Amino acid sequence: MKLNSKIIMLWVAVLLYNGSYAQTVFDQKKIENAMVRAMEWQEAHPIFEMDTRDWTCGAYYTGVSRAHKSTRNQVFLAALKMAGHYNNWEPYKRLHHADDIIISYSYLYANTIRKRIVDLKPTHEFIQHHLYEPNAFTNGSDTTLMKILWWWCDALFMAPPVIAYYAEQTNDNSLLDAMHEQYKQTYDLLYDQEEHLFARDTRFLWDGVDDIKEENGKKVFWGRGNGWVLGGLALVLDHMPKDYEHREFYEQLYREMVAKLKELQHKDGLWRPSLLSPESYSFGEVSGSGFYTFAIAWGINNGLLEKDEYLRVAIDAWKGLQKCQQKSGKVGWVQNIGAEPNNATSESWQNFGTGAFLLAGSEVIKLKK
Amino acid sequence: MKLNSKIIMLWVAVLLYNGSYAQTVFDQKKIENAMVRAMEWQEAHPIFEMDTRDWTCGAYYTGVSRAHKSTRNQVFLAALKMAGHYNNWEPYKRLHHADDIIISYSYLYANTIRKRIVDLKPTHEFIQHHLYEPNAFTNGSDTTLMKILWWWCDALFMAPPVIAYYAEQTNDNSLLDAMHEQYKQTYDLLYDQEEHLFARDTRFLWDGVDDIKEENGKKVFWGRGNGWVLGGLALVLDHMPKDYEHREFYEQLYREMVAKLKELQHKDGLWRPSLLSPESYSFGEVSGSGFYTFAIAWGINNGLLEKDEYLRVAIDAWKGLQKCQQKSGKVGWVQNIGAEPNNATSESWQNFGTGAFLLAGSEVIKLKK
Amino acid sequence: MKLNSKIIMLWVAVLLYNGSYAQTVFDQKKIENAMVRAMEWQEAHPIFEMDTRDWTCGAYYTGVSRAHKSTRNQVFLAALKMAGHYNNWEPYKRLHHADDIIISYSYLYANTIRKRIVDLKPTHEFIQHHLYEPNAFTNGSDTTLMKILWWWCDALFMAPPVIAYYAEQTNDNSLLDAMHEQYKQTYDLLYDQEEHLFARDTRFLWDGVDDIKEENGKKVFWGRGNGWVLGGLALVLDHMPKDYEHREFYEQLYREMVAKLKELQHKDGLWRPSLLSPESYSFGEVSGSGFYTFAIAWGINNGLLEKDEYLRVAIDAWKGLQKCQQKSGKVGWVQNIGAEPNNATSESWQNFGTGAFLLAGSEVIKLKK
Repeated sequence: MKLNSKIIMLWVAVLLYNGSYAQTVFDQKKIENAMVRAMEWQEAHPIFEMDTRDWTCGAYYTGVSRAHKSTRNQVFLAALKMAGHYNNWEPYKRLHHADDIIISYSYLYANTIRKRIVDLKPTHEFIQHHLYEPNAFTNGSDTTLMKILWWWCDALFMAPPVIAYYAEQTNDNSLLDAMHEQYKQTYDLLYDQEEHLFARDTRFLWDGVDDIKEENGKKVFWGRGNGWVLGGLALVLDHMPKDYEHREFYEQLYREMVAKLKELQHKDGLWRPSLLSPESYSFGEVSGSGFYTFAIAWGINNGLLEKDEYLRVAIDAWKGLQKCQQKSGKVGWVQNIGAEPNNATSESWQNFGTGAFLLAGSEVIKLKK
Repeated sequence: MKLNSKIIMLWVAVLLYNGSYAQTVFDQKKIENAMVRAMEWQEAHPIFEMDTRDWTCGAYYTGVSRAHKSTRNQVFLAALKMAGHYNNWEPYKRLHHADDIIISYSYLYANTIRKRIVDLKPTHEFIQHHLYEPNAFTNGSDTTLMKILWWWCDALFMAPPVIAYYAEQTNDNSLLDAMHEQYKQTYDLLYDQEEHLFARDTRFLWDGVDDIKEENGKKVFWGRGNGWVLGGLALVLDHMPKDYEHREFYEQLYREMVAKLKELQHKDGLWRPSLLSPESYSFGEVSGSGFYTFAIAWGINNGLLEKDEYLRVAIDAWKGLQKCQQKSGKVGWVQNIGAEPNNATSESWQNFGTGAFLLAGSEVIKLKK
Repeated sequence: MKLNSKIIMLWVAVLLYNGSYAQTVFDQKKIENAMVRAMEWQEAHPIFEMDTRDWTCGAYYTGVSRAHKSTRNQVFLAALKMAGHYNNWEPYKRLHHADDIIISYSYLYANTIRKRIVDLKPTHEFIQHHLYEPNAFTNGSDTTLMKILWWWCDALFMAPPVIAYYAEQTNDNSLLDAMHEQYKQTYDLLYDQEEHLFARDTRFLWDGVDDIKEENGKKVFWGRGNGWVLGGLALVLDHMPKDYEHREFYEQLYREMVAKLKELQHKDGLWRPSLLSPESYSFGEVSGSGFYTFAIAWGINNGLLEKDEYLRVAIDAWKGLQKCQQKSGKVGWVQNIGAEPNNATSESWQNFGTGAFLLAGSEVIKLKK
């Protein structure tokens, strides 16, 4: 009898264990390890475009922030604190340039964990100037194609998530309103209502005169460029109040883009540098794919997407991303810094590519069956 | 004949080699390798609580200093110099807070090796203010439980070793007198004359009203807290003149605590987070155990302890500590930042835990049979 | 017929592949990997003598610069940019001291790749002062053995390559003239016209009174010291216009020294710390050998040396150097900081030794059969 009750206990334990094990799609420990190794390799190979506070570092440490939020593994927090400390918790210097504020996403995250060591004043001042002061983009003194603040689609990753996060922490919806005003301008200018994708900038809009076309005759929609938009959208939604006046605009945009990207996913789970012309560069590009994977898994985890429709997409995408990580931890197949589709190899890496990988991992690790 | 003399030479060589090999308890190369790997992992995962000059970094680089002193392996010195350089050889900022001066232990050590690059002025100024000026602890403006300078036992690691080391380098015993005055206040307040252990702070003193007790009814004596005291004591004694007026006070305290800790060591060679209540957290905690191992091995190496009585303790302790180091070099089982006993896992690490491991290695490497 | 043409195509492909494969002496990927691992280990073990802008870092990052120039592997450029950024693109502080300007070689290289982030003003000001202002060496206030600017042979690596590189970028031959004036003084003082080697400084010149001799009665010619000269010479020639007035002086000096060093190479491909007294320290020293290997391979690649005569030298040298690199990437057998021949071990390393290894790799990787 005693034996029997022991056996029953054992079976119950096994069932309970399998039950909780069955909940997550992936082996969480394995994903966390992949993420840790990616970060360790990146920290051992520090890189930037112009400064340690620039958008490359900003996108990377956004990934590190979300990696810590999901795993609570201290290696991520230690790296975040060290980076913020050396940067004196400052954004980079061009107050009109969205690129120069994304680093503050990691400061804002650190502020939720170790308030005492973070200084948000420089972030506050940047945002105030960026949103409310006349500046070198809007007045045209920093020459761009259009006199709007966020005239290129990448900008929608660089500034809006930081503004939404800061609005959340300060409980100030007026910042969201100011963000929305700018966001709409970019949307009106660059969003293709038929393809449900963003042109990188006005160079790629068609007006019938010298239109830029892929060899297959299609429009150029940049993989990473749309990754910036969709990844940024998930972050904005994550920090936006459920009852915020214009939230529906962002949710609808999110759902439209995701539905389109589902169609464009390849068998290897990844997306190509030129979304409508996969044959131009026929490999899975990791930075764009990482942002999509993050955004889609986030949508499943947060009830914006039907699991039946999208779980498969996220699973295949993560499997594809994992294959791009080398034994050393290095994440390859990242298209270099640029402003349109281009080549990459198994060896090409950038910190923002690692950031996209970490973002993807931070949400797929939570996927439930 | 020639052959015979060659054979004799060979035997002599073998005997001499075995003789010198037999002298040290452990394989010195193996310990040095473990120490190097611990430091390499830690340098690749930089961390701090509030600043790169804070007590966490201070305790870590104290370990790196002693590691270099024992092994003369250049990797330790290179890391020390780099850290001091980036800190501008400055202590952290709160002149009344013992935590903020321990980083200077590594500056003082670097000063014995590369005088030309070290600046001891900020250390001098901190010590002068800390010991001789009225300050925010003693006047109560930085609220603590008691208006004394070192009102918590950790402080006895943070300030006294630096003061003793600076007194040694400047040949100024008046600093030791000033230190002794403060040290005695802490001793009188927190040292338990029956248990021969320190309460972490006055919260854990018993006066019969709402006394904090472990579940087994015993007092709470924190493992790491007493590690701070005992590790600090060994360092103070190491830098204190043999004929210093109050030296006997420190030697007696050292011997009392060591005798008690010998009783409290577990079969795995390590000590528990709550010294008198091992069942509260039943694992060997590495930061406290590392400081004890350092202090005990130091006492054996410097003739304060009988080898017959204590060698076994140190040997078992080091064997236990080694098991807490992972292949990567990471030292686990370190209780997180805190002010009383708490949990840890094989994965929990902190730089000061690595520091304790290095301190332990720096003395057990010298143990002779 | 179709099959036949396919077979022919295949053969053509094989022949072409073998042809291009046969062109380089070594497996280029293998050399690049060795270089990357050397740099990765070094970056994980940062070290300096006095400052992160000093000559040790300068020599190291000169190697990193040339490594990137040859391989275009981004890991090298990332490290260069990070180092320059943290140094604010500044030389070290002693304007009269050649040691303090060599770090600018890496800034000048970075300037050819990422002009926008590099600031050459501090380099410009240092060079102007160094070459044209009375200073603490020439007026004797910084006591040396002789009142000349470059009174020790190492200086010919530290300043002339930077001056020549800056002259090339600014198209200003007057800088070369000023450099030549100083260079000749050092040459006249320290170059041994019989041995075709440089004395380290005047201590090692013979005047018949208390001459310093090796045990074998020969003069002391320091391996690394002559490595500084020859490595510096290759760099100067690399940046000097083909038709520059005094170029022939440098080419002849280069050829004389190389011819002598060919004689002094050992079976293991390497050179000894004391060139004429290999028995004093009978091991292949990596820093000196690395500089020679770089200079000789550079001469072959640039048509200054006959392949028939020197290819063997360079091949053997690289094979010898490779054996001094450990699995971890660490480059051992580097004589420590000093001013004359001394000992080393398989474990002794310095960042400038890694720099010499990278310089060697950057040219042997291009050697053609």
